[in-house]
Amino acid sequence: MSQVRAIVFDTFGTVVDWRGSLIADFTQWAQAKNISGDWTALVDGWRAAYRPSMDAVRKNPARGFLILDELQRQSIEPLTASLGIKGLDAKDFDYLTYAWRRLDPWPDCVPGLTRLKTKFIIGPLSNGNVGLLVDLAKYGGLPWDVILSAELFGHYKPDGEVYRGAAKLLSLAPEQMMLVAAHNYDLAAAQNEGLKTCFVPRVTEYGPHQNSDFKAEGKWDYVVKDLVDLADQLGC
Amino acid sequence: MSQVRAIVFDTFGTVVDWRGSLIADFTQWAQAKNISGDWTALVDGWRAAYRPSMDAVRKNPARGFLILDELQRQSIEPLTASLGIKGLDAKDFDYLTYAWRRLDPWPDCVPGLTRLKTKFIIGPLSNGNVGLLVDLAKYGGLPWDVILSAELFGHYKPDGEVYRGAAKLLSLAPEQMMLVAAHNYDLAAAQNEGLKTCFVPRVTEYGPHQNSDFKAEGKWDYVVKDLVDLADQLGC
Repeated sequence: MSQVRAIVFDTFGTVVDWRGSLIADFTQWAQAKNISGDWTALVDGWRAAYRPSMDAVRKNPARGFLILDELQRQSIEPLTASLGIKGLDAKDFDYLTYAWRRLDPWPDCVPGLTRLKTKFIIGPLSNGNVGLLVDLAKYGGLPWDVILSAELFGHYKPDGEVYRGAAKLLSLAPEQMMLVAAHNYDLAAAQNEGLKTCFVPRVTEYGPHQNSDFKAEGKWDYVVKDLVDLADQLGC
Repeated sequence: MSQVRAIVFDTFGTVVDWRGSLIADFTQWAQAKNISGDWTALVDGWRAAYRPSMDAVRKNPARGFLILDELQRQSIEPLTASLGIKGLDAKDFDYLTYAWRRLDPWPDCVPGLTRLKTKFIIGPLSNGNVGLLVDLAKYGGLPWDVILSAELFGHYKPDGEVYRGAAKLLSLAPEQMMLVAAHNYDLAAAQNEGLKTCFVPRVTEYGPHQNSDFKAEGKWDYVVKDLVDLADQLGC
């Protein structure tokens, strides 16, 4: 590990609990506004639309790059209609979309990252846009050194441009950077570009709908219990 | 000020003392290596080549965007030759170039930024490249939330693309962002793009060669003594 200088982190699912946070946020907000709806179904349905919406960008470069905020805003409106949630206006949809900027970190993240930061450059490497990731860090107290986003490269993960682009922006060779993720597909793509890899399991990320990523499925450089364990293993 | 959400900072001169740091670094390094040279003249000559090298990029877009590290590396070699400094190899020139990643902050910066960070998104808005700015922050303990660099926009300040691009990356309107700088030309360009502005004097930046920027020369929104004074004025 002596040559690794930067550790970057997938964010949604790996660092923050998007599902639990969104369900709690929407439920509380809807109670205060007296709007009824199945908010758990909305969150799960929204997440199901997440990857296809990015894949549409990846497969249609002529369409141009759209940031995640825009994709989420486009997905949410038809989804509420299909779930029979009524009475939402444009401002409400903006509120729901920006809930992705108010997600709680898993409990090990702030202590683990704070220790890792003493020896390494740390940052997200996420499909979230820059503004979203900055707000998320302020909200959760994530002590990033740099914000690395798909938006900076005009490509979504798992496109190779994102992993290579991140290393290049930091003036590093790919093997001087390690990706930490709870998703095997993301690590496979990073490894394919020459990055070091670390798997951290987040087995409650999808709640009862979790059907993959219970364990490491590739030859990753590190497999850790959580980010505090990673700090231990790296002597931070 | 209630609408300002992000405060961004010119870096070389405004946040870090490039001249004092480089002269000290080179003098100590040369003594250890037993290389003789006028290191103060080298630093001043290098800084004189800095803006023309960026202006050449700005005026020749067909040449493509070159990051500051590359421009500095190109400038240093002929400059040592003209000053009669002998015996330097490629590794030495790399060492000298990377000295721009080891610059000390002015004494008010870390305390001032730490307080400003509690209420605002803070980051550099610099012509330095991303990797340089990240190393600089780690070196000096600068508590940035985000690294905003000319490199991300493919334009050097004072091109408008840099100021507008920074606001857009943070999902902000230009007037929701304020630039802090020790240089009136930089503030004028930012104001022209709709950003709020704050002048902080750094009257020893160029040592005995300082011939401008002793005081505010425009209608800036704030004029402060230093970054601690700015934190005071903004109630942080």
